[in-house]
Amino acid sequence: MRIILDAMGGDNAPHVPVLGAVQAVKEFGLSVLLVGQESVLKRELDKYSYPAGRIEIVNADDVVTMEDQPSDVVKKKKGSSIHVGAKLLKEGEGDAFVSAGNTGAVMAVSLFTLGRIKGVDRPAISAILPNLKAQTFLLDVGANVDCKPIHLLQFAIMGEAYARYVLKEENPRVGLLSIGEEDTKGNELTKEAFKLLKKAKEKGLNFIGNAEGRDIYTGDFDVIVCDGFVGNVCLKLSESVAKILAKILKEEIEKHFISRIGAVTLIPAIKGFKKRIDYAEWGGAPLLGVKKPVIIAHGSSNAKAMKNAIRVGAEFADTHVVEHIEENIQKYGKINGD
Amino acid sequence: MRIILDAMGGDNAPHVPVLGAVQAVKEFGLSVLLVGQESVLKRELDKYSYPAGRIEIVNADDVVTMEDQPSDVVKKKKGSSIHVGAKLLKEGEGDAFVSAGNTGAVMAVSLFTLGRIKGVDRPAISAILPNLKAQTFLLDVGANVDCKPIHLLQFAIMGEAYARYVLKEENPRVGLLSIGEEDTKGNELTKEAFKLLKKAKEKGLNFIGNAEGRDIYTGDFDVIVCDGFVGNVCLKLSESVAKILAKILKEEIEKHFISRIGAVTLIPAIKGFKKRIDYAEWGGAPLLGVKKPVIIAHGSSNAKAMKNAIRVGAEFADTHVVEHIEENIQKYGKINGD
Repeated sequence: MRIILDAMGGDNAPHVPVLGAVQAVKEFGLSVLLVGQESVLKRELDKYSYPAGRIEIVNADDVVTMEDQPSDVVKKKKGSSIHVGAKLLKEGEGDAFVSAGNTGAVMAVSLFTLGRIKGVDRPAISAILPNLKAQTFLLDVGANVDCKPIHLLQFAIMGEAYARYVLKEENPRVGLLSIGEEDTKGNELTKEAFKLLKKAKEKGLNFIGNAEGRDIYTGDFDVIVCDGFVGNVCLKLSESVAKILAKILKEEIEKHFISRIGAVTLIPAIKGFKKRIDYAEWGGAPLLGVKKPVIIAHGSSNAKAMKNAIRVGAEFADTHVVEHIEENIQKYGKINGD
Repeated sequence: MRIILDAMGGDNAPHVPVLGAVQAVKEFGLSVLLVGQESVLKRELDKYSYPAGRIEIVNADDVVTMEDQPSDVVKKKKGSSIHVGAKLLKEGEGDAFVSAGNTGAVMAVSLFTLGRIKGVDRPAISAILPNLKAQTFLLDVGANVDCKPIHLLQFAIMGEAYARYVLKEENPRVGLLSIGEEDTKGNELTKEAFKLLKKAKEKGLNFIGNAEGRDIYTGDFDVIVCDGFVGNVCLKLSESVAKILAKILKEEIEKHFISRIGAVTLIPAIKGFKKRIDYAEWGGAPLLGVKKPVIIAHGSSNAKAMKNAIRVGAEFADTHVVEHIEENIQKYGKINGD
C-alpha cells in the first residue's frame, strides 16, 4: 500500500505532513510518496529516521494557498502538489491521495483529474463527527451548496458504503437531515429527497427516516445526508459551540477559588474528553464520488492527524469503497424506469 | 401593562404558567390575564397569594396539544386558549400574548387573528442564544422552511428592531448566515439576499456581511438571519452539542477517582455556567411580523422561564417594536423602484 501525500498542504506544511508521513510508515508499515518542492522536503525529511525506501519525494513546484480560488487552481496551478498528487493517483503510482490543503482546490482538482464515479452527479465532502456511541458520518459539508433531491440520495448511497466498509458499521442507519421526524416535515428539497430515499429503502438501503439537528450527536444515525450549505453551517457551528462552552466554563472556574483548586483534579477526565472529541483521532474525511480514494484532512492538522489521515487513506483504498459505491449506485440510485 | 397568558400551554401547564404569572405580578408590578379552563385555573390559582385583582381568568374550553397540526388548530379549535388569547390581544384587552404551547399553532393562530405587519410577507420565529459577549438574535428558526431573498431582508429588519429596542443593543450588527465571509460565498438564496441587504445597508441598516455557523456564538453579530430550515437545524444542533459535551465530560469524570472528588469543587462554577446558558433566563422569543406582540416560550419552560417570558412580553409591548418594524420596513425593505 502506497499513499500519496500532499506535503505542501495545511497550515503547518511541510513540517506536519512530513512528520505525519514518518510516523505513518513506522506505525502502519505502508509507503508514502511525498509531493511538493523537492529541496524543501528533502531538508525536512533529513531530520528523521525511517525504514529505508518507504518514503519517496516527487517534485511539484507550485504551491496552492488557502486564499486561491479552486477554479483558478484547476486552470493555472498545474504544477501544484495537488495536481501532481492527483495525477500520480490516477496513473496508479499510489493507492490513495491525502491532502490538508485548500479543500475547494483539492476537490476541484481531484474531480477534474480523476473523474466522477458513473452514476454520481456530484462528489461530496464528508465529516466524521464523534457521537455518544461511535461516530456520525455527515455529508455533504460544503461541496454542493444547492442540491437536487437525487444528489441527496447519491450522498446517502456513498455515505452508507463508507460507513459500512471503512467505519465498520454493520448495517449503517441512514438519515435525512430535516426539521422534524415525520415524513411530511422539511423543505421542498428534503421532502422530495425523502421520497427517493424511501424507494431506495424498498430496494434494501437502511434509510431510517428524518434526522433532526440534535441527532448528529445522539448516535441514533450512522450516516446523515444534507445539502452542502446546511452541512457546512452545522460543522462550523458544532466546532464553535464546543469551544465556546469550554471558554464559558473556564471563565466560571476562574471566578471561584475553590473551583480553581478542584479543576486540577479534572486533568485526567479532560484528557479523556479531549481524546473523544479530537478530530486528530479521525485523521481526515473522504471525498466521495470521484474514481479513486481521496482524503481531505483539516487545514490545522497536527502530525498525529496527518498520520491518521494516511491510515484512513489506506483503509479507504483497501476496502474498495469506490467499487462498492459503483455497485450500490446501480442498485439503489436509479430513479427512473423502476 | 397587562399580559395575556396561555395558561394551558407547555409541558407543565397549568401549574407552571400559573406559578409564573404569580411570580411575575409580584416582581414586575404588571397584571396578567390567565386564559384556559376556568375551574382548573381557579383551583390552581387558589394555592397562591398575590396582589388582589392583578390576575384574572378568562375561560377557554379547548386545549391544544403538542401533536395537533397548526392548520387544524386554526380551523377546528376556536375555543382554545391560543385562539381566545390572541383574540383578547387583538381587541386590546391586553398588551402582549405569551404562550408556551404548540409553536406552530401559536404562530398560525396569531397570524390568522392578528394579521401581518404591512410590508412583511412572512412572520418569523426567533431564538435568543447566549454568546460570549451578550446574545445573538437568530431568525427564522422554523416558521418558513423555503424562503425567498426578500424574506431574509425582512427578517433582518425585524430582528434589528427587536435587538435595538428590546435587547438594548445600540446599533445592532446584522449578519446573513452563510458558508464563508466573502460576498460571493453562499447558496442561491443567500447570494441574492446578500445583494438586498447591501442595498438596505446603503439606506442605513447596519448589515455587516456574511456570518458563518461559528458566528452564532462568537458575539460578533447581534442579529443573524437565515431560512427557517437552517435556523431550526442550528437551534436543535446547539442544544444537543451542549448536552452531549456535558454528558461526555461527566462520563470521563466518573472514570477517574480523583476527578470525581475534584468535581465537587466545581459546583459554584457550574452554577454560574448554567445561569449563563440557561434559556429560562431569557424567558421566550418573539414572533415577529404580526401586528401585536406575541412571545413564544419553550414548551419545557419552568416557572422562572414563564415569569421571564411575561417580562419579555411587557418589554416587547412597552418598546413599541411593532411600530418600529412598520417604519423600518418602509425605510429599508422596499426593493422595487428605489
